[in-house]
Amino acid sequence: MIAASEIAIVGATGLVGQEMLRVLGERDYDISRVGLFASRARPEQNILSLEHSAAELKKFQYWLNATEDDVARTLADEMRRVGGSDGPYFIDNSSAFRMNPEVPLVVPEVNGELLGSTPSRIFANPNCTACLLTMALAPLKSYGIERVIVSTYQAASGAGIRGLEELESQSLDSNTRFSIEDRRLRYPVFGFPLMGNVLSHNSRVLDETHPAAGYNGEEWKVMEETRKILNLPDLQVSATCVRVPVRRAHAEAVSVDLKKEISIDAFRALYQDRPGLRVVDQWPENHFPMPIEAEHQDAVLVGRFRQDPFRPQTVHLFLSGDQLRKGAATNAIQIMERLARP
Amino acid sequence: MIAASEIAIVGATGLVGQEMLRVLGERDYDISRVGLFASRARPEQNILSLEHSAAELKKFQYWLNATEDDVARTLADEMRRVGGSDGPYFIDNSSAFRMNPEVPLVVPEVNGELLGSTPSRIFANPNCTACLLTMALAPLKSYGIERVIVSTYQAASGAGIRGLEELESQSLDSNTRFSIEDRRLRYPVFGFPLMGNVLSHNSRVLDETHPAAGYNGEEWKVMEETRKILNLPDLQVSATCVRVPVRRAHAEAVSVDLKKEISIDAFRALYQDRPGLRVVDQWPENHFPMPIEAEHQDAVLVGRFRQDPFRPQTVHLFLSGDQLRKGAATNAIQIMERLARP
Repeated sequence: MIAASEIAIVGATGLVGQEMLRVLGERDYDISRVGLFASRARPEQNILSLEHSAAELKKFQYWLNATEDDVARTLADEMRRVGGSDGPYFIDNSSAFRMNPEVPLVVPEVNGELLGSTPSRIFANPNCTACLLTMALAPLKSYGIERVIVSTYQAASGAGIRGLEELESQSLDSNTRFSIEDRRLRYPVFGFPLMGNVLSHNSRVLDETHPAAGYNGEEWKVMEETRKILNLPDLQVSATCVRVPVRRAHAEAVSVDLKKEISIDAFRALYQDRPGLRVVDQWPENHFPMPIEAEHQDAVLVGRFRQDPFRPQTVHLFLSGDQLRKGAATNAIQIMERLARP
Repeated sequence: MIAASEIAIVGATGLVGQEMLRVLGERDYDISRVGLFASRARPEQNILSLEHSAAELKKFQYWLNATEDDVARTLADEMRRVGGSDGPYFIDNSSAFRMNPEVPLVVPEVNGELLGSTPSRIFANPNCTACLLTMALAPLKSYGIERVIVSTYQAASGAGIRGLEELESQSLDSNTRFSIEDRRLRYPVFGFPLMGNVLSHNSRVLDETHPAAGYNGEEWKVMEETRKILNLPDLQVSATCVRVPVRRAHAEAVSVDLKKEISIDAFRALYQDRPGLRVVDQWPENHFPMPIEAEHQDAVLVGRFRQDPFRPQTVHLFLSGDQLRKGAATNAIQIMERLARP
């Protein structure tokens, strides 16, 4: 078992950092001994300024990063300088290193074997939507996954505390008379009212020079990272990422073309007793995966298993998972714990 | 031009019936002369009981039905009895006759030519989601539509006034502590809290004896009706229908495999200046089709045009349309007006 005093969280005041601390507490770490860092110090909460982190680098063996790409790059550089082959582990929730071929991009239930076979001290935590998606796709790998189409229903808190607060400040009524002119002032995170609405994901659309022109940044992350995590470099995958007025927990409608035909019973059976998955598929009650049951849970809920009536090699499912738990904090801590295993 | 006194609305107190009256008013019909029928009379609103309709059948030439299947069947039977080949037209928004091979299922912009070439006096108005979908698919027919995958984001008012009121009575906070036991009492329409959540569509899941077992009724309607409206009986189509906490206007994420390759420019060009469609596809502003802009509009908003980076014959788009307008009332009135054209 890792001692709590070996663990540091960078970005400890953000939603993901706070969730990391919560998950550690639930797993019986003495969280009063976890090192906490943020962009500015908050002495009353024992939070140190990030500027001090360089001096502290060797004090902690496991660095859980919950900040953005630029901070991640700076920290990783410093660690390489002071660390070396027995230096600290850097488990990074930013997207800075995810597609770096030397850095494992890990969902422990899916490709956890990578953790035992790499010289890397940097480990990337996937995009939350990709993490949840690969959890639901991995059981199908034995049938050969040829193609995936996913449409998402993503929660406001995926955009951080400001995104969550922006949703919570709105009402169904307040948004019926929004003005296109003042929208950037009134809705700085999402650009449009989210309550009572659905919005194309608030990441930048890739321009005409990009091979996936017209997709937004979130969609392209999901597409690239899914290929890497599943180790299927030729997988055909397309995502449509959409924000919905949900506080917490994403949902995804997933269609999969397989290389081999599968019966509906065999399809369902693949999802029984899988670590990290929970089947919610009760037809008579119309009870299927939904965000208000997935939130604050580590398990990814899966259900709505269907075989395509016109294509026997195609199956469909629906999932919901807490993007701050399995999509971020829990997954990072699972990586840390597997690294510490003898 | 049809005289308002030739028009009757059955189900005049429901959301669709009310919207029919509103659309007629906007089109300069004298709505004080439109015949109004509902399950019980409301003399103060000039609404007659449905029981009187048989006697009134010959008084109106255009019957717009906004009630459920059983009422539709009874009315259609009565009309056949009293009407004959010059009897009244029955334009039915229920699902009773949609898949009847003798009844045209019509979206005027898509297959309006059927209105001039049939002996039928019954015309079916499609399922709202199918109607919006075929509006967005029709431009692609010249490239050969092989396969469609659609995931929906459907508004509460698709379940009628009670569905809308159920959503409006909820708050983000009230739904965080719902109990699975009392859910049918507290959420009689949707079965679960919808505010702050997303739910599999509240129609019944088809059982193991059905060729599309596991799909719900709404999904199967979308799949069957899309094939019929597009006149593509071999189309491979799969739908995932989901309710989102939106009051009004559905949205759909649509993926289409074509028989011929298409350039992104040619794809976009297909959607310019199409009657009934409005392109909303502004990349720099992240401004795409969304329910709060589609509501109370006749036009279906389309955008997020993308070519699949891994499959040049596959394209993706997103749409939003008011399911009470183009998805129901407007479409029915368009059918009526085309029937009256010499």
